[in-house]
Amino acid sequence: MTAQRADARRNYARILAVAEAEVAAHGTDASLEQIARTAGVGSATVRRHFPSRRALLEAVFSERIDALCSCAANLVDADDPRAALLDWLTALTAYATSARGMADALLQDEMDDADHVNACAARLGGAVDPLLDRAARAGAVAPGVTTADLISLVTGLALATEHHPDPAAEAHRLLALTVRGISPQG
Amino acid sequence: MTAQRADARRNYARILAVAEAEVAAHGTDASLEQIARTAGVGSATVRRHFPSRRALLEAVFSERIDALCSCAANLVDADDPRAALLDWLTALTAYATSARGMADALLQDEMDDADHVNACAARLGGAVDPLLDRAARAGAVAPGVTTADLISLVTGLALATEHHPDPAAEAHRLLALTVRGISPQG
Repeated sequence: MTAQRADARRNYARILAVAEAEVAAHGTDASLEQIARTAGVGSATVRRHFPSRRALLEAVFSERIDALCSCAANLVDADDPRAALLDWLTALTAYATSARGMADALLQDEMDDADHVNACAARLGGAVDPLLDRAARAGAVAPGVTTADLISLVTGLALATEHHPDPAAEAHRLLALTVRGISPQG
Repeated sequence: MTAQRADARRNYARILAVAEAEVAAHGTDASLEQIARTAGVGSATVRRHFPSRRALLEAVFSERIDALCSCAANLVDADDPRAALLDWLTALTAYATSARGMADALLQDEMDDADHVNACAARLGGAVDPLLDRAARAGAVAPGVTTADLISLVTGLALATEHHPDPAAEAHRLLALTVRGISPQG
């Protein structure tokens, strides 16, 4: 790799990291100019890597999906299949509540490119299905529960707690309630 | 009551019923002119009863809260405290998914008048708390679960399923999963 290409890669990684923080703080309205300033690069550099706001948001979104996929892959061989699934649900809840608009993006609301979102959902399913299957085989999850169900439930928690004074804490509390059930017996 | 006042009351009830259907179909963007046409009254009559779009939406919202309160009051003496609570949750889910924007309104998003929304939430709590307490005393619900928790969970289901081809069916399916728990044992 030339020094120039190594520089470009470092810039890309730095812009993406700053963009994630900006999106977490300001949602999908995050300012490209602010991202360039914080990353210490010019607006032209940001635009060379991410030609549009949507390209940047898709990269942030994609990075988060990758992290959730890695998390699932790391957990799939854990000793306790139930604890592994719950750890992943906790990570998903943290992600879904960490960025305003992220939960909407998961629901295809904020981002118009349904193909991109569907591809991310498929990637997520590929990583999480084995984790969920293992928990179901261990009897820890009702058969028929899908990865899409888990994503819907957690996305709902994130959306429902968006206006709460401490959204993440409230979403995690409601996740615990959703895991054990409002009224499990009957 | 004079014939004129009886007429006015009938008009009010008819406009409100039509408004509920319009809000169910078109959300908070429902057209006042369409409501007047369907109710068979003039726009001036609609405006006499509901001086603003917000006044109309608040009346629709309030009517729905009243219906949910009556539902809870009717269920509080039912034989099976758990089944009674689940029946109410089913009614809440039906309401939350029947009108686009209704779920947001419950979260104070669509309606600016927080006082009005808070008053509705308090009214709802007054009616539902006894139902929930009874189910908790019967051991059917974990202690510490609040009416606000139930509203948050169901609102989340409604928001998370808004873009689904059949939102109500999907929300009811996810409600069943939330009631029995993703993974109740552990």
